[in-house]
Amino acid sequence: MSISTMQELLADFAERRDWGRFHTPKNLAMALAGEAGELAAEFQWLTPEEAAEVMAEPGKAGAVRSEMADVLSYLLRLADVLDVDVEAALREKVDLNEERFPVPEAAVGEGLRSD
Amino acid sequence: MSISTMQELLADFAERRDWGRFHTPKNLAMALAGEAGELAAEFQWLTPEEAAEVMAEPGKAGAVRSEMADVLSYLLRLADVLDVDVEAALREKVDLNEERFPVPEAAVGEGLRSD
Amino acid sequence: MSISTMQELLADFAERRDWGRFHTPKNLAMALAGEAGELAAEFQWLTPEEAAEVMAEPGKAGAVRSEMADVLSYLLRLADVLDVDVEAALREKVDLNEERFPVPEAAVGEGLRSD
Amino acid sequence: MSISTMQELLADFAERRDWGRFHTPKNLAMALAGEAGELAAEFQWLTPEEAAEVMAEPGKAGAVRSEMADVLSYLLRLADVLDVDVEAALREKVDLNEERFPVPEAAVGEGLRSD
Repeated sequence: MSISTMQELLADFAERRDWGRFHTPKNLAMALAGEAGELAAEFQWLTPEEAAEVMAEPGKAGAVRSEMADVLSYLLRLADVLDVDVEAALREKVDLNEERFPVPEAAVGEGLRSD
Repeated sequence: MSISTMQELLADFAERRDWGRFHTPKNLAMALAGEAGELAAEFQWLTPEEAAEVMAEPGKAGAVRSEMADVLSYLLRLADVLDVDVEAALREKVDLNEERFPVPEAAVGEGLRSD
Repeated sequence: MSISTMQELLADFAERRDWGRFHTPKNLAMALAGEAGELAAEFQWLTPEEAAEVMAEPGKAGAVRSEMADVLSYLLRLADVLDVDVEAALREKVDLNEERFPVPEAAVGEGLRSD
Repeated sequence: MSISTMQELLADFAERRDWGRFHTPKNLAMALAGEAGELAAEFQWLTPEEAAEVMAEPGKAGAVRSEMADVLSYLLRLADVLDVDVEAALREKVDLNEERFPVPEAAVGEGLRSD
């Protein structure tokens, strides 16, 4: 499923419930922050080791998965209503960061790069 | 670009810089909350009307786009390191919400649904 | 109750439950972000007008009040474990902002200042 | 400085700049989430050990302190505009949690409680 297909699915879901009036950019940005906070909360008391094993515990795994779906949903809805191409934005960000954080020559020479 | 292609791009970027040790589930969940907070901050003092026009102002548009790319990047990295299929998680969430929030008959009859 | 008295109350509560090991700076910063996200979530679908009247609805008022207490608790715990004087930090921030955002002469002349 | 004195300081600061129109409950809740996200971001790549030593590094310490002041400022402004007594809310929350999370008899017997 492409990003745009997911966005159509979410837009259709909202439209059929007449929720478009709630899905303003400001509200969606706020909802996204709320869901990201709830996702973070799943990890807050875990040690780094416990956090790495979070998906091995079914109840916790389900909660993490559910919160991640919520974050993605609101991010894609926000991108949709603002007409932002998040796929292009991500690619540009990676290109920009390639320049900002150059890989040390040595690292390349030592084969940390596979290409 | 599929979700998994984006994840490979991000994983490769991190790996070439030896940043894998920073990209633990707990750290990524925290970074995601941080970026969602920064995205929300772009909208905090705007009226709903101003927020709806945020992409018409180039400086602000660039900031919003950049923060959205950051949120997506950390969400996809987190999904990758936890081995969570966010596309499937989103689809399941929509299916679940179709049951939790049934569309009123009337709304369907009035043609708010296109299918 | 002073800030430090509140901190003692919270420290004592945590200590009696042997929760000190959970209350590390990193965990508390994460918990604070989580609670701030939950507080924001109480307002996410409200219009500005509805948000202004949120305390008039008992159920909603209780939730907002509870989330605010959580945010304050984690902020004070974090300040305690990091030995940060938040009262002094707030005063310094206000002083700094007085310089960064000077009040226009006109505004003072028109009596927007009471002193 | 009491909570209410801090709130007067902040209200006066906002009023002299005619910022009251920005300080709506919804905007302040969003700003609080943003600042909590920025505070979390200060800790995101640190190990638990590094996070515990964050105040020993002057630059980092200043950033943490500044973000904490921002979180407190917005929380107190929000409480002020909503007319919420956060001190009472915190006390009630502690009382509630005393009931929800009773201290094991053994722990009391072993002297983890000082009273």
